[in-house]
Amino acid sequence: MFSFEITAQSSDTSARAGVIQTSHGKVETPIFMPVGTLGSVKSISPEELIEIGAQIILGNTYHLYLRPGCDIISRFEGLHRFMHWNRSILTDSGGFQVFSLAKLAKISNDGVTFQSHIDGSKHLLSPEKVIDIQACLGTDIMMCLDQCIQYPASREQCRAALKTTTQWARRCRHSWQSLQNGQNALFGIVQGGMFTDLRRQSAEELTDLDFSGYAVGGLSVGEPVEVMLEMADFTLPQLPQIKPRYIMGVGTPENLIELVALGADMFDCVLPTRNARNGQMFIDHGTINISNSRYKDDTDPLDPECGCYTCRNYSRAYLRHLYLAKELLAYRLNTIHNIHFYINFIKRLRKAILVDAFEAFRQDFYHKRKK
Amino acid sequence: MFSFEITAQSSDTSARAGVIQTSHGKVETPIFMPVGTLGSVKSISPEELIEIGAQIILGNTYHLYLRPGCDIISRFEGLHRFMHWNRSILTDSGGFQVFSLAKLAKISNDGVTFQSHIDGSKHLLSPEKVIDIQACLGTDIMMCLDQCIQYPASREQCRAALKTTTQWARRCRHSWQSLQNGQNALFGIVQGGMFTDLRRQSAEELTDLDFSGYAVGGLSVGEPVEVMLEMADFTLPQLPQIKPRYIMGVGTPENLIELVALGADMFDCVLPTRNARNGQMFIDHGTINISNSRYKDDTDPLDPECGCYTCRNYSRAYLRHLYLAKELLAYRLNTIHNIHFYINFIKRLRKAILVDAFEAFRQDFYHKRKK
Repeated sequence: MFSFEITAQSSDTSARAGVIQTSHGKVETPIFMPVGTLGSVKSISPEELIEIGAQIILGNTYHLYLRPGCDIISRFEGLHRFMHWNRSILTDSGGFQVFSLAKLAKISNDGVTFQSHIDGSKHLLSPEKVIDIQACLGTDIMMCLDQCIQYPASREQCRAALKTTTQWARRCRHSWQSLQNGQNALFGIVQGGMFTDLRRQSAEELTDLDFSGYAVGGLSVGEPVEVMLEMADFTLPQLPQIKPRYIMGVGTPENLIELVALGADMFDCVLPTRNARNGQMFIDHGTINISNSRYKDDTDPLDPECGCYTCRNYSRAYLRHLYLAKELLAYRLNTIHNIHFYINFIKRLRKAILVDAFEAFRQDFYHKRKK
Repeated sequence: MFSFEITAQSSDTSARAGVIQTSHGKVETPIFMPVGTLGSVKSISPEELIEIGAQIILGNTYHLYLRPGCDIISRFEGLHRFMHWNRSILTDSGGFQVFSLAKLAKISNDGVTFQSHIDGSKHLLSPEKVIDIQACLGTDIMMCLDQCIQYPASREQCRAALKTTTQWARRCRHSWQSLQNGQNALFGIVQGGMFTDLRRQSAEELTDLDFSGYAVGGLSVGEPVEVMLEMADFTLPQLPQIKPRYIMGVGTPENLIELVALGADMFDCVLPTRNARNGQMFIDHGTINISNSRYKDDTDPLDPECGCYTCRNYSRAYLRHLYLAKELLAYRLNTIHNIHFYINFIKRLRKAILVDAFEAFRQDFYHKRKK
């Protein structure tokens, strides 16, 4: 079960609001998906995610395939029950991880062979296998296996990777169709590096394959933010209007608001969770580094206007103390706040779209940042 | 405000049940106090402690004095508000940490000088200062500064430490009386090493000073468990029947049941929390090492009879996966279970005392362990 409906469209930008329906409930777009790579959003519980308002989280095929493995997760009939999360899950295909994390990734006719970053063991991920794994995980939204490349990359490299990505997408789709369970959606991933004509070609080839939704991959890989936005600006309109459009692995609140303006619907990023563990906290006015000595006797919450569990109950001084003492609770309280910030930020942004006040929201956002 | 009432007495052992009243509520004895050294029970929240049924937790004077310091905690009118915990708090005096953790501890007329284990800075803790710090922390039960010694120690060393401990106890009591706020109780700490006559002398000298309660210190410092129990067996009857009696830093569930049989009322120990972080889980039948490969595809909860959040929602396979992947949630879920085990274990033990069935409970406990 999968559907997508657009419920509002901004009149002065390409921003839009919609609703995705999966077997595990509704996902109101634009949406931010917290990253739970290994079957856990680091340090926080499913109940906390629900209190924050998360509707969908991300898992990772590469990581979960290596550890704990499908044989184990299948005993729980999938990732939902294994990790005690009954809302939607999207899993990345592992393409990005195979090329960034694993050793000796080598493309063959079958797919990609590599050595595990954990124990050096040899594995093959093929388009068919990636679909099988995601079916075993029981994820609501599957992603095609794609070939990711480093930045910068030559036109020739990008063209070759794009060719592989399209071939794999076709095989993924074929394999996905043969599942015939109708439970999961499958998204294609646009590649093409920082070359607009290759991006167009990739978008066209994937559109022809008619996926449930489309992702723009290969962004936020080291390129300047202007280039990232330029690529998104070019690529998003190439994708079917009526399908959800997902920008992978991006980004800052500023990135999100600009990408929503360009018509993107879905986002994931490790920024709120990873930075929380490094003491960098997101607020409307920018970021706070909680280890800063200016907060040592500050009795105020992180953000007095924030309604998250952390801000309702703890002070900056306490959070700084926990962080400096390396207390485990620090990572959790910081993560709760940062995810709440991201999800609440996107929720407010969505509300603005619903009343066609997106541009005013954007101006107000930058005004607060300048303070 | 502080009171202690004995509500039931076992007819065939010295076990007893009672109720302590502090300004922050009631504490039903026998009680296990989770350790929250730095103003946080590692990895878990106050709400989780309350759900588990914790009525009192431990803080540490030495640690909180060094970090974040009284100037900061006083801005919150004490530790309760600083750490968002509104039930009772007992703080250890820091005596144990000064002698075990700090560098170059040296006893002078004033108290004990030492260098911080964090940054090497020099400090003096005197009996008066330890009371001042605990008053600033606003703890419900303060502990006297005592001189701890290593095990084994000579009779002469133990006698000298005992002499200092009594002198300091007198000065602590004097300082505590001058506070005159009636908010906090003060407990004396019996020392005397593993020598019964010194233990008797220490108990007598402290009893003369009339404290709100009495602790037996200097146990579980490396001596065989039989010696620990022998010392407790000898010392507990030397202490006033009508006052709460606290065995510091002990121990395993087996230790706790034996010490309750000897008439002890209060316990603290890092075992459930520290071992949780090392993957060792407590259950009625003994312990489980969650990293064991036998649990890799085990869909059962840690303990099918346990009602804790972890056992209600997660499997052994998931807990093992989180633990091996070093996911932060592992430490939290394990800690919840272990603290729940300890607190629930002592609660069941208390119920048995209330219906004068302690001995039957003890036999049943050992029967389950043998399985």
